[in-house]
Amino acid sequence: MTQLESARAGLITKEMKYCAEFEGIELEKLRKLVAEGKVVIPRNKLHNLKRPAAIGEQMTVKVNANIGTSVGYSSLKEELEKLEAALNTGADAVMVLSTWGNLSEMRKEIVKRSPVPVGSVPIYDSAVKAYTEKRNVVDFSEKDFINMVLQHAEDGIDFMTIHVGITKRVLEKLKNSRRILKIVSRGGSIIAGWMIKNNKENPFYEHFDEILQIAREYDITLSLGDGMRPGAIADSTDPQQLEELFFMQELVLKAYDAGIQVMLEGPGHVPLNEIELNVKLMKKIGLGRPIFLLGPLPTDRGVGYDHIVSAIGGALAGYYGCDFLCYVTPAEHVGLPDAEEVKEGVIAARIAAIVADVARGNQRAMKLEEEMARARRDFDWDKMFKLAIHAERAQKKFEKMKYTEDGCSMCGPFCAIKITKDFAEEK
Amino acid sequence: MTQLESARAGLITKEMKYCAEFEGIELEKLRKLVAEGKVVIPRNKLHNLKRPAAIGEQMTVKVNANIGTSVGYSSLKEELEKLEAALNTGADAVMVLSTWGNLSEMRKEIVKRSPVPVGSVPIYDSAVKAYTEKRNVVDFSEKDFINMVLQHAEDGIDFMTIHVGITKRVLEKLKNSRRILKIVSRGGSIIAGWMIKNNKENPFYEHFDEILQIAREYDITLSLGDGMRPGAIADSTDPQQLEELFFMQELVLKAYDAGIQVMLEGPGHVPLNEIELNVKLMKKIGLGRPIFLLGPLPTDRGVGYDHIVSAIGGALAGYYGCDFLCYVTPAEHVGLPDAEEVKEGVIAARIAAIVADVARGNQRAMKLEEEMARARRDFDWDKMFKLAIHAERAQKKFEKMKYTEDGCSMCGPFCAIKITKDFAEEK
Repeated sequence: MTQLESARAGLITKEMKYCAEFEGIELEKLRKLVAEGKVVIPRNKLHNLKRPAAIGEQMTVKVNANIGTSVGYSSLKEELEKLEAALNTGADAVMVLSTWGNLSEMRKEIVKRSPVPVGSVPIYDSAVKAYTEKRNVVDFSEKDFINMVLQHAEDGIDFMTIHVGITKRVLEKLKNSRRILKIVSRGGSIIAGWMIKNNKENPFYEHFDEILQIAREYDITLSLGDGMRPGAIADSTDPQQLEELFFMQELVLKAYDAGIQVMLEGPGHVPLNEIELNVKLMKKIGLGRPIFLLGPLPTDRGVGYDHIVSAIGGALAGYYGCDFLCYVTPAEHVGLPDAEEVKEGVIAARIAAIVADVARGNQRAMKLEEEMARARRDFDWDKMFKLAIHAERAQKKFEKMKYTEDGCSMCGPFCAIKITKDFAEEK
Repeated sequence: MTQLESARAGLITKEMKYCAEFEGIELEKLRKLVAEGKVVIPRNKLHNLKRPAAIGEQMTVKVNANIGTSVGYSSLKEELEKLEAALNTGADAVMVLSTWGNLSEMRKEIVKRSPVPVGSVPIYDSAVKAYTEKRNVVDFSEKDFINMVLQHAEDGIDFMTIHVGITKRVLEKLKNSRRILKIVSRGGSIIAGWMIKNNKENPFYEHFDEILQIAREYDITLSLGDGMRPGAIADSTDPQQLEELFFMQELVLKAYDAGIQVMLEGPGHVPLNEIELNVKLMKKIGLGRPIFLLGPLPTDRGVGYDHIVSAIGGALAGYYGCDFLCYVTPAEHVGLPDAEEVKEGVIAARIAAIVADVARGNQRAMKLEEEMARARRDFDWDKMFKLAIHAERAQKKFEKMKYTEDGCSMCGPFCAIKITKDFAEEK
C-alpha cells in the first residue's frame, strides 16, 4: 500500500508517527490530513528515510534545496558537499537536478546518504542523453519519458516533478501571448520543444496512467510541475500560467484515485501584491493539495541576492498557505551554486519558513520566539545562539567584538535592555 | 520659511524640484503632498544637500542606514568608510548614532560629506556625557534635552528622532504589562530612566514648543521616536506600544501648526500577520504622515541574518504604506556593524524597498522590471548587471563560471530560455 492508501485505510505508518511527533500534532489528525491528500509524506519504498517530512496544511513550512551538476561541473564530491551544506543548515528535502556526469550513479549515492526526502525531474535525463549523443536536446522518443520516470523510481527518488500540464492548448495560448520570457522552466521548455517538434500532445499527459502505475509501485509523490511559471514580474499571473494551473485539478483527482500523493508546483517571479492571489488560487484549484513554490521572487532585479528576494516572497507565500519552499541561492540567474551558496540559500529559505510559521500561529514556532525573547532579556547569549535559526555567523561576530559587561558592542554601556533594568524597572 | 511653510505658501523649493524629477511626478502634485504633511523632504538650512529625498505617500520607498561609533570603536575613519559603503549601495539617508568619541566633530564631518539627508538622536549625547563624567547614564539636567537638540541642529542634522511619546501614562502601563523586553529603544530607555529618577514628565513633551522653535529655525524634520517599540515577537502590538502611538496625533498637529515636517517611527519586532495592521494604524493615527520603520523583524530568531529578516518585514511594510525603511545589518543584536555589514544591510533594505515599489505599482519601478525581463530574454548580460539593484556579486559569480554559449553555468546547454528560442517558438 502507498502512504496515501494506508492513511485512507486508517493505518498508521512509521513515517506518520515520526512526523506527528516532529510537528507536535495528534497522530490521528495527521493521518486524516494525509488521507484527504492535504498533507503528503514523500518516501520511495526503496529509500530508508531517517527524517521524513510532512508537507501541507497545518504543518510547519518546509524547505527544499536544489543541488546537482551542470556541464563543466560534474563532481560527485562537490555534490556531496552541497548535500552536507543543505542538511547542516536544516533543509527538509533536497532535489537532485544534475544535468552532467553519471546521473543515475550520483542520484543513487545521494539517496543512500540523504536522511531527508530526495526529489528529481526525470525529463532532464532524456535531454542530457540526447545532447550527449550529439542530437538536439528535444530529440528523444516518447518511450523515453516513461523510462526515465521508471529509472528515477528505481534509484530511490521520493518525489518527482512531472510537467504534465503543458498541453497543446497551453502552447497555443503562449504563441499569441504578450509574455516576454516565454518559458523559464527547464523541464517545461524541453517538453514544449518536443511537442512542437513531434506535433504531439504532452506525453506525460497522454501516458499519465502509466506514470501513476510506476508511482504506485514505488510510492512516489508526484509534484505537478509548472512549465508555464512566470520568469519575470511582467509575465506573472498571465493566462498561460493560469491555463496550466486550471488543468491541474483533473490530474489531482486522477492521482488521488490511484492512491498517489501529489503536490502542485508554482511560480516563479510574482510581485508581492499577487502572492496571496496565486497561493489561494493554487490551493483552491488543487483541492487543498500541498503547494511547492520556487521563490516566489517579487523583483527581477535582485540578481546576486535572489536568496533575499525569495525569502521575502517565500515568507509571504508561506503565510498565505504555501507549504513547501524551494530555496533560491545567491547564484540564481548567473551560475551553478557552490556549497557555500547552497548554505546561504537554505538559511534564507528557512528564515522565510519560520517567519511564515510564526505568522500562521504555529505553536512550536511561537514558543521558540518567546524563549528567544527571554534569553535576550536575561543576556543569556548561549541560549540565544542555541535558539537562533543558524547561529554561526552571529556567534563569530559577537565573540570578535565582545563587550565585557552585559550587552554587546553595538550599544556598549548604552544598551537599552541594561538601562531599562538599571533605571526604569521596579526593583 | 521652512520646507513645509514654502509648500503651504505655494512656493516651489529647489529640493521639491530635484525630488519631483527623481520620482517622475508632477512638481505641483509633490508640492501639494508636502503642504499636506504627507511627504517630507528633510533638509537642515545649514546642510548643502546634493541628493534630497522625498519621503512619503506616492514616492518610492526610501532606505536609511544607521552608522555611528560605540565604546571601543570610535574612529572617524571607519565611520567615513561606513558612510561610503552606505552611499555606494544606494542609501537615501544616513543616521549618525555615535555614542563615543568627539560626537559633534564627527557629526559635522559626516554632514559635510553626505549628499543625502543625515539624521541623529540628540538624547544619546546627554547619556554619553553623563557616562564620560562617571555619572549614571540617565543623570543629566532637563536643560540638556533642549541643548542637545540645538547642538545637533547647529551641526547641520536634517532629521532628528525625538522620543516625545513616552509619557508617565505610558510608563504606568508598562509597569503592569506582560512585556518580556520592557524597552529596547536606547533613547526610550534613557528618557524612561530619567523620568523615573526625577519623577517628572517627559521633558521633550514638556518642552515640545521649544523643540519646535529650534526645528523651525533650522528647518529640521522631526521623527517622532517610538520608545515603546516591541523588541520581540511576543511583545508586538501591545497596549504600551499603542498608547505611545495614539499620543502621536496631538504632536503631529502641533508640529504642523508650527510649520515643521514630521515622520512617525515604528516597530520593531512584528510578526508578518500584524504588519499590515501596524502600518495602517500608524498612517491613520499619524494623519497620513510618512512612516519610518526599524525593520520590522518578523522573527526574533534570525540573528546573524537580521538583514534578511528585516528585508521580509520591510518589503511587506512598504507594500502596505511604509515610506522609509531603516536598514538592519547582519550584526544586529550582536555587535557594532562594520563597513561590509553596512553594505549588506543597505542592499537588503533596498531590495525590500524595490519589492514594495513594484507591489505598489510604481511606474518607474515597473519599467525597470520590464527592461530586466527583456535583457534576460536577449541574454544581454551587461544590461542585466546595469539594471541589477547591486550587480557586483552576481557579476563576479557569472564571470568566475562563465559558460561559453548563451546562458550561464547553472543550466549550460539546457537553458530554458535558449531551448524555448531554439525549439518552442515560432521563427
